[in-house]
Amino acid sequence: MLLEARHPTGEMIIGAGAFHGTGPMIHAVNPATGENMDPGFAGATPSDVARACALAAEAFPTYRETSLEVRARFLESIADEILALGDALIERVMAESGLPRARLEGERGRTCGQLRLFAQVVRAGDFLDVRIDPAQPDRLPMARPDLRLRNIAIGPVAVFGVSNFPLAFSGAGGDTASALAAGCPVVVKAHSAHPGTSALVASAIRTAIEASGLPEGVFSMLFGTGGDVGAALVADPRIKAVGFTGSRGGGVALMQIAAARKEPIPVYAEMSSINPVLLFPGALAARGEEIGKSFAGALQLGAGQFCTNPGFVIAIDTPDVANFVKGACAAIDGGAAQTMLTPSIHAAYDRGVEALAGHEDVTTLVRGAQPTGPNQARTGLFEVKADSIGSEPGLLHEIFGATSLMTRVRDVDQLRDLLVDIEGQLTISIHMEESDHDAVATLLPVMEEKAGRILVNGFGTGVEVSHAMVHGGPFPATSDSRTTSVGTLAIRRFLRPVCYQDMPQSLLPEALRADNPLGLWRMSDGMMGRD
Amino acid sequence: MLLEARHPTGEMIIGAGAFHGTGPMIHAVNPATGENMDPGFAGATPSDVARACALAAEAFPTYRETSLEVRARFLESIADEILALGDALIERVMAESGLPRARLEGERGRTCGQLRLFAQVVRAGDFLDVRIDPAQPDRLPMARPDLRLRNIAIGPVAVFGVSNFPLAFSGAGGDTASALAAGCPVVVKAHSAHPGTSALVASAIRTAIEASGLPEGVFSMLFGTGGDVGAALVADPRIKAVGFTGSRGGGVALMQIAAARKEPIPVYAEMSSINPVLLFPGALAARGEEIGKSFAGALQLGAGQFCTNPGFVIAIDTPDVANFVKGACAAIDGGAAQTMLTPSIHAAYDRGVEALAGHEDVTTLVRGAQPTGPNQARTGLFEVKADSIGSEPGLLHEIFGATSLMTRVRDVDQLRDLLVDIEGQLTISIHMEESDHDAVATLLPVMEEKAGRILVNGFGTGVEVSHAMVHGGPFPATSDSRTTSVGTLAIRRFLRPVCYQDMPQSLLPEALRADNPLGLWRMSDGMMGRD
Repeated sequence: MLLEARHPTGEMIIGAGAFHGTGPMIHAVNPATGENMDPGFAGATPSDVARACALAAEAFPTYRETSLEVRARFLESIADEILALGDALIERVMAESGLPRARLEGERGRTCGQLRLFAQVVRAGDFLDVRIDPAQPDRLPMARPDLRLRNIAIGPVAVFGVSNFPLAFSGAGGDTASALAAGCPVVVKAHSAHPGTSALVASAIRTAIEASGLPEGVFSMLFGTGGDVGAALVADPRIKAVGFTGSRGGGVALMQIAAARKEPIPVYAEMSSINPVLLFPGALAARGEEIGKSFAGALQLGAGQFCTNPGFVIAIDTPDVANFVKGACAAIDGGAAQTMLTPSIHAAYDRGVEALAGHEDVTTLVRGAQPTGPNQARTGLFEVKADSIGSEPGLLHEIFGATSLMTRVRDVDQLRDLLVDIEGQLTISIHMEESDHDAVATLLPVMEEKAGRILVNGFGTGVEVSHAMVHGGPFPATSDSRTTSVGTLAIRRFLRPVCYQDMPQSLLPEALRADNPLGLWRMSDGMMGRD
Repeated sequence: MLLEARHPTGEMIIGAGAFHGTGPMIHAVNPATGENMDPGFAGATPSDVARACALAAEAFPTYRETSLEVRARFLESIADEILALGDALIERVMAESGLPRARLEGERGRTCGQLRLFAQVVRAGDFLDVRIDPAQPDRLPMARPDLRLRNIAIGPVAVFGVSNFPLAFSGAGGDTASALAAGCPVVVKAHSAHPGTSALVASAIRTAIEASGLPEGVFSMLFGTGGDVGAALVADPRIKAVGFTGSRGGGVALMQIAAARKEPIPVYAEMSSINPVLLFPGALAARGEEIGKSFAGALQLGAGQFCTNPGFVIAIDTPDVANFVKGACAAIDGGAAQTMLTPSIHAAYDRGVEALAGHEDVTTLVRGAQPTGPNQARTGLFEVKADSIGSEPGLLHEIFGATSLMTRVRDVDQLRDLLVDIEGQLTISIHMEESDHDAVATLLPVMEEKAGRILVNGFGTGVEVSHAMVHGGPFPATSDSRTTSVGTLAIRRFLRPVCYQDMPQSLLPEALRADNPLGLWRMSDGMMGRD
């Protein structure tokens, strides 16, 4: 990589070229100082969007048929190139996001680990989901043809950069990694909060593409303010799927654009979740104060700017609930205010907290310390009577940041009623002891219908990137509860099955040939095997 | 089963009860005679729809957690009960559909075979897609929690009866069987062309539910004319997915209703396909006339009323194309007209053929014999210049029935251009010899992007129900190219993953327990195994 690539120049990356846009100018804002950062990034025009999509479509047939080994090495090489950006990357992200170094070094590790994990997935080839039903020429009343199924990549994918994960869920983050792993070229719309970070990551991907000898259209990155560039990208007929993490309004808008296309396409939008935390009597009795303390830690982590932030606490009412409240309040009271990612996120947080605090049925349990600098947010813990929630569903809308609403329920039945009424969630956390098992067992079915992940004696923050992770859930947690955006199963979002009937061996894709040259796990006549 | 259940009474089945509706009355029409059949079936009211959905939602938690064995036996018992309806069923379908006995006995076999195949799938349990990432308490910088993933049923499913498969894709057909296999209760909106057939099948399912001791809401069947009952069903908040096979207009309307819900849900609509047949020079030289003859057979099978009917033929132009035309015309010329399924399907067919035949760029190659009775359709084979197609995409809209449009292309390049421009398809058929392999190889990538199934030296009609089948394809062939509506992979449409983190063994679903009590294939730390 050229040294100068370590300092963003304000250019977009469209295929092999770097271009200054001619659309409206974006400047990142350092949220800790409120100052604009250089350089400016001029937004993409409609013809820039079209060019990136055309290159992606051109690259698609070649890229989706790269050998598993080539594609795996490409993913690994992106990870290498990101590390090669060195501290210049970390410093740029710190300035653009206000996030501390340790968090961002960890996030870089996660981003690279994610790319390497997807490389393993590609090499293993299970994602091809190969199924073979051999011919039965003598079957009566009719011969059975030879049928062979594999997954192929769905086509070029539009990925939206994400404010709260400038590395792990943006340019080379989870959506991009899983789409590239599936064999899909990617066009990223960078998040306007961290254009410089995005440009650096894009340069790393560009270097990896060149080193891997792949077609230039495998990756492009566009800038743009407002919704225009994103809307044009999702509407482009060459785009075949969309990965998005962000607000409910933004996600729903993309879903509508995608549904209104001449050819509707899937949108994977991860949008909105308050991640209920359920406190059971046994746990409250055994360690109520400790749970309160760790809850406060999870709530305030990263200024609460996680999709899995615990925004709603439901305690089965006993005298021990006071211990939870005591622990939580002690850990929050007077704790320093934290800088949020962007001025607009900070403003939205303050508006949301103000509305909640001002609601007549809501009482304030504790607030964190007052801000001492720009874009800093005060933690908040509030309480509401359970009976008030039914008539005020707005109380349960996500407030992105370190604020949580608590309520007490009489018993398991009232808890069930509450859970039945809430919207879909990414996570539900259960705090329990063995004495709570019976109560939890009766509620688990409702939790399963409401969330993608159910966790015990912990909090949803800290999403593991692994095979069994589900970072998804019923609407509005995501637009498509059948999928996950974190973990290896995320690759399935960008695949579709194709069946080959009576195709001569020499024309079959390698994955489907009789001698199994790739050594894949395959289903043959319904039985898994690896012959 | 009670003897009287073998004769439909005009009642809907809502849970355990049979009710006369109070909506508009439906009479099946015997298409061969044009006469109304008794009894009448009064349509469902909005409150009937709501009741069926409420019962389905009530049944869901119990039904989705039935043991794999209980669920498998239930599916087998539906098959047994359908067979127990005996000849009364076959005679009713013959009268309502105009289809011949042999076809319907075959279709009944397919329907029962499909239910038994899904029973095997349920017993094998692979559809649960179990993944386990064991805890790594000593991992640095952070311990890894124990993560376990399984699929659960998505919720109650609305299934629409299908005109052209009164058994295999209606009451107990592919959508119902795969949804029930996944653990989803089903509410069927019966097709108004065969209400008596539907009622008989529903009574068989009802008997199986009672014999299996399952909750009544596992299955209901509603009648209704027009779109009202179907629209209310798809809009009901308790419905979580939709299975539909039918017209493009109907499918798109359901997609829009589902997308406009407060909680959007997936719609699996199989809608529209002209199933291109590609004729390569080697094949035309070796056996052009024979291919023409078998093409005519596939075209006219069941009066052409298959989603996979070969509606578009593209021949690479050589003198041998004449042999194909000769074979096809000889087999069609003077062949008897066939009764179509319903007066409205027949009317739409006649309108479509008339428009095609009257188009200034279209020439008629051959027509079948004139009708001799009501609702009979004449086969048609037409030709158009390839250059005319680009400016007239309407020429490539599906005409449901035994009509096909043929065109000749100069070479492989023009063939590729044509394929690139066509919409998504269920199938593409290739007729080739070894001398054509190179040409086919260069076109296969385009075919993969356009169709769910690519088949060699055959026709798409005759869809095998097996593990490797894909009956799907890019829009408008279906609304969701990631899925299939035929074959065992269809079960995946009705599942979503849930992750359990640090859940005690005693609270885990059996599928996820450490000792693997169900003996499932599971992925552990990324490796498949069965320990």
